[in-house]
Amino acid sequence: MIALFCRVQYQGGHKTRPYRNNMEPYFKKLTIIGVGLIGGSLAMVLRKKGMVGEIVGVGRSISTLELAVKLDVIDKFTTDPAAGVMDADLVVIATPVASIAGLLKKIAPYLKEGAIVTDVGSVKGTIVKETEGLLPTGIHFVGGHPIAGTEESGVGAAFSTLFEKHKCILTPSAKTDKDALEKIRKVWEAAGSDVILMDADKHDSILAAVSHLPHVIAYSLVNTVDDVKDFEESILNYSAGGFRDFTRIASSSPEMWRDICLINKEAVLDMITRFEKSLSKLKGYIKESNGHEIVKEFDKSKKARDSIVKK
Amino acid sequence: MIALFCRVQYQGGHKTRPYRNNMEPYFKKLTIIGVGLIGGSLAMVLRKKGMVGEIVGVGRSISTLELAVKLDVIDKFTTDPAAGVMDADLVVIATPVASIAGLLKKIAPYLKEGAIVTDVGSVKGTIVKETEGLLPTGIHFVGGHPIAGTEESGVGAAFSTLFEKHKCILTPSAKTDKDALEKIRKVWEAAGSDVILMDADKHDSILAAVSHLPHVIAYSLVNTVDDVKDFEESILNYSAGGFRDFTRIASSSPEMWRDICLINKEAVLDMITRFEKSLSKLKGYIKESNGHEIVKEFDKSKKARDSIVKK
Repeated sequence: MIALFCRVQYQGGHKTRPYRNNMEPYFKKLTIIGVGLIGGSLAMVLRKKGMVGEIVGVGRSISTLELAVKLDVIDKFTTDPAAGVMDADLVVIATPVASIAGLLKKIAPYLKEGAIVTDVGSVKGTIVKETEGLLPTGIHFVGGHPIAGTEESGVGAAFSTLFEKHKCILTPSAKTDKDALEKIRKVWEAAGSDVILMDADKHDSILAAVSHLPHVIAYSLVNTVDDVKDFEESILNYSAGGFRDFTRIASSSPEMWRDICLINKEAVLDMITRFEKSLSKLKGYIKESNGHEIVKEFDKSKKARDSIVKK
Repeated sequence: MIALFCRVQYQGGHKTRPYRNNMEPYFKKLTIIGVGLIGGSLAMVLRKKGMVGEIVGVGRSISTLELAVKLDVIDKFTTDPAAGVMDADLVVIATPVASIAGLLKKIAPYLKEGAIVTDVGSVKGTIVKETEGLLPTGIHFVGGHPIAGTEESGVGAAFSTLFEKHKCILTPSAKTDKDALEKIRKVWEAAGSDVILMDADKHDSILAAVSHLPHVIAYSLVNTVDDVKDFEESILNYSAGGFRDFTRIASSSPEMWRDICLINKEAVLDMITRFEKSLSKLKGYIKESNGHEIVKEFDKSKKARDSIVKK
């Protein structure tokens, strides 16, 4: 391993910290690849809980990394993932989903024996399959997905309580190291999350339904309304609060959501088809003025929706 | 007219008020049929602005009407629409859309010469067409729709600033009395609304796009997710904040939205068809992994959505 022969060079940040060992597991060196809202918030809470010593940030933008040092989110940084993960006990990949597998390949030769790697990507099946057999023996990968976030992005929006009371899904496979899995579970529990273990494909189906499908629909709805050119003015001007809330997620990053749709293609297409059938049924009832069936559909929906809010 | 031969009997509320004449137009007697969130809030702001003398409430539930008196929203009440509108200078019908035309027929013989009737229904074409020729000469109808509301309903949720800075669409036809239209415009301007005059059919198309379609989609989406029975648990448990915001409108009244879908059937079906085409296009791009076109669609949508939020 190259790591044994190099002295790690960082490009910025030279903070050193006294080691504290308040919480088990304790990671002497944590490397966060992708210091944004999620990566930054996780670094903040793990520091606060005394679970990590030194925190190294890896990113593409020097100014973002400098801001992260200034905000005390990371101690040191580099733009080179290989240099960043050397000697790390825990590596968290918090970059866009499309880049995770490539990054894993890139850092694999530089990870030290016993290192644990985890990610926070919104799609898990492909990533878990790609990592198996990719990492050398003695280095462990645990797939993770904290279901938390805000409309904001970037390390400037990070805060240590982001994950509190939110679900975090871990997707171990039969090959996942039990000890590494337990440590990652403790990491997310320390962050305040409700940790759930789940098969990666099940995760992808569920997220396709409750997250990916709504995004596709929101984007599509805004375009539908925007494309109504029957009048001399944009009818979006007539949207009220309901429409704005409903379409908030259409303000999300187009590139991020393209990647999610493509990486989770099968499950997303399946959910779109199911939705098309549901909408088509409702459209049929409206066409035939079947008030009884319309109320039945709306009522079922209202009851299901009200039930998730009460929780 | 029967009104000339009756002494109006109210069932409750016996407040009398000194007449004030702060604002033009001044309505000595205002009758609100349907004292809920919208009707109640309008009564409150018109009283506050000194635009009305006595306020009579008409409803089906005595306890609601008693609450409205207690909250100082109305002065007197009756459950009989005919009795309620006698001697009224302004009548506001704030009941569910499906009941408006029927109520108009019922109260028509009891309205006094010079009375103005308006409504607040979310669908206008049918109502405007049905009223024309229904009311005796000298009694004027002006269709209206304040685009305001909250998740709450009922007079207990009413507040005088509900309409402030919200659009209120009035839908005069060629037959609408100009003077009556001007008075109703002043009523909504006094309530703080941005008043817009528009053809009733145009109103119905626009609202089908920005309000009725999103409701149909939200109901349909929740049912789609709720119907995924592939796992041993309800996957709605995995919904995060985005899904909850997105589906808030699925918690609206099923009966109210059935009525809106049926009364505005043509426009709603047209918008569902447009949306189906937009979603189908996007689905095709995902199927063929056309990342370029997916980003183009998402980006167009994000820009349109961001533009309405900045306003």
